[in-house]
Amino acid sequence: MDIHEIHFAHRFDNVSGSAIREIFKVIAQPGMISFAGGNPSPAALPDRTVSDLARQVLEKDGKAILQYGATEGYAPFLESLKAYAESQLGVQIPAILPVTGSTQAMDLLCKAMIDPGDTILVENPSFLGNIQCMKLYQANLIPVDSDDSGLIPSDLEAKIRQYHPKMLYTIPTFQNPTGKTLPEDRRRAIAELSNQYGVVVAEDDPYRDLRYTGNQIPSIKSFDQNGWVMFLGSFSKIISPGLRVGYIAGNADIIRKCTVGKQSTDVHTSNLNQAIVDQFIRKNLLPDHIRQICLEYGSKMRAMLKCLNDFPDGVHFTHPEGGLFIWAELPQSIDAVNMLSKAVMQKVAYVPGTYFCVDGGHLNTIRLNFSNSTLEQIEYGMNVLSKIIQSEM
Amino acid sequence: MDIHEIHFAHRFDNVSGSAIREIFKVIAQPGMISFAGGNPSPAALPDRTVSDLARQVLEKDGKAILQYGATEGYAPFLESLKAYAESQLGVQIPAILPVTGSTQAMDLLCKAMIDPGDTILVENPSFLGNIQCMKLYQANLIPVDSDDSGLIPSDLEAKIRQYHPKMLYTIPTFQNPTGKTLPEDRRRAIAELSNQYGVVVAEDDPYRDLRYTGNQIPSIKSFDQNGWVMFLGSFSKIISPGLRVGYIAGNADIIRKCTVGKQSTDVHTSNLNQAIVDQFIRKNLLPDHIRQICLEYGSKMRAMLKCLNDFPDGVHFTHPEGGLFIWAELPQSIDAVNMLSKAVMQKVAYVPGTYFCVDGGHLNTIRLNFSNSTLEQIEYGMNVLSKIIQSEM
Repeated sequence: MDIHEIHFAHRFDNVSGSAIREIFKVIAQPGMISFAGGNPSPAALPDRTVSDLARQVLEKDGKAILQYGATEGYAPFLESLKAYAESQLGVQIPAILPVTGSTQAMDLLCKAMIDPGDTILVENPSFLGNIQCMKLYQANLIPVDSDDSGLIPSDLEAKIRQYHPKMLYTIPTFQNPTGKTLPEDRRRAIAELSNQYGVVVAEDDPYRDLRYTGNQIPSIKSFDQNGWVMFLGSFSKIISPGLRVGYIAGNADIIRKCTVGKQSTDVHTSNLNQAIVDQFIRKNLLPDHIRQICLEYGSKMRAMLKCLNDFPDGVHFTHPEGGLFIWAELPQSIDAVNMLSKAVMQKVAYVPGTYFCVDGGHLNTIRLNFSNSTLEQIEYGMNVLSKIIQSEM
Repeated sequence: MDIHEIHFAHRFDNVSGSAIREIFKVIAQPGMISFAGGNPSPAALPDRTVSDLARQVLEKDGKAILQYGATEGYAPFLESLKAYAESQLGVQIPAILPVTGSTQAMDLLCKAMIDPGDTILVENPSFLGNIQCMKLYQANLIPVDSDDSGLIPSDLEAKIRQYHPKMLYTIPTFQNPTGKTLPEDRRRAIAELSNQYGVVVAEDDPYRDLRYTGNQIPSIKSFDQNGWVMFLGSFSKIISPGLRVGYIAGNADIIRKCTVGKQSTDVHTSNLNQAIVDQFIRKNLLPDHIRQICLEYGSKMRAMLKCLNDFPDGVHFTHPEGGLFIWAELPQSIDAVNMLSKAVMQKVAYVPGTYFCVDGGHLNTIRLNFSNSTLEQIEYGMNVLSKIIQSEM
């Protein structure tokens, strides 16, 4: 018999693991129509291309790829990635670091910047995985107000003056979970405020290329004069999440600290995975592949929005121009957490919006993903949801 | 002009990045004979097999491999890994988590267990990467005394009673940097002390299979009655470090905390890389491959030891039975940091031992790697070192 108890680190005191991941276990039943995940559709995952590229890079540079690599990145990828990111961002980048999925970008940025008790301003609602990341760094999370266009600069400034935050975390394009996109003038305002007050901005932009209508908007980073905006990029949504390749770009001193942090986090990102993404960039395979994905996801998004138009009065929802998610507000009296079990019994799943809210509440909200269902599933599943909502009113 | 300064997190106050990595930049010159790294030899890296396996797994399960995976691991690998690890360890394992190289095992274990100021007992000297990891968690590192057989249990118990540590970090087999292997009775003693006092043991055992003489010794974990020993395993030395696949095994509550930590660290380890290692295990490719590696490295180790026998009097060195490293103590008057520049001028490199020492000092020590040089390079390079040492005496 063991007389001792295990004492875990205090950073876990308020973190018990992702609630969403528990939902995912429940809904992993055969026949479930899931609007819950944020997964690419199977058709969008280029398995044959990846197989060909893996063979090619291992034939050409196999010994170096299987050997230890530099923490700073696999040299050919570092080169192609920098050019790629600069074309994405529309500005020169002083430094860039390939990482093991953009989740690691956030982890390393927090490792570099955040002491327990430091304040981070966050959009509310926001991406659950990175909320958990910030909580594990024992940050003080303060929500910033949003309207239909996203983060409100005047509230951001007020919160900066009140809380003296170390960082702002934002997903400006096709936001997770709301699907909202921040307009150009607000991006410029955020960059200016970050420079004026010395606040690091974590600009998390994994959905940027998934635009189905409207025009590309310049990054917050492109308005950054003094190097306070760090850009977090990902290949998860345009190549494959399973490969775990992303990047962080911006201020060289911050990238250096992230690199030192990465030395003792995973030494370097798998060379094979970096080499595969490198070939996607060098062979210019991304534009066509992204075009195909956008065709597929765009029609799914329109189908889901069309269904939502027929939902009962009192249901409000966002009108994204891209990304993976639509956010819906049900009538105040409906508790979307309770309603989930009824939906799951009828083989339809979503994520209750409260889980994305830094301050809890918002029990009448839901997040709907359209990328990982067929048009038929969307039509059928949304009809089920509509009827359940009707019966709850 | 920017009027604000960036304030990094305090965990970096005493961490400036790996000194070794700076050395590596200097010695990355053409023609350099490097005894400095800890890299597998090119011949030991199975590039053709990895290429074949990558194609096979992507053909068979490509869509799942490129999709998001479970943080808990790619299901087929989780199954084969558990059986593999249990055969390695000689005991049942309650829980196991695939990680992105065993460096991540240490990072997640510290994330789960260590608050700033917590004490970790460490062998001295020890592996630099994990020393940096523990420093970034702001642990209080206390060295435990060793003799020719490694960690001394009586000193370990004294230090446990004095410092009430959260953890002991040890590399029991072919230790990095000394090459020493802890005998069975001491392993049993360490397991018993950890159980008696409630101290988590991080048993880091990446070199275990690289044995060139003598018999396999049971793991510390195999003597663990109450689940205080966590085993950190790696495929970096027996398949490829570039693929970044390792694991952590032991107590289910601790593994659960590591899993939650991993959710917001990199979500999951690349499925492709897990699937490749899975096939190495399932196709039983490891025994033959390890036998070949051991033949190659064993002859290199013997060649280097033979050279050391001819070194000037006053040079003492370890006699490993496997692994990648030999540790040498030069006469007290020699400063191995200063001596390095002379060696590098003659195109020979090593790592000064002081960099591995938690408390600094030990300026007269060096770490020599033999795996990544040819027999000719070993003979030539060791002769150069011998003459430099002679001239310094």
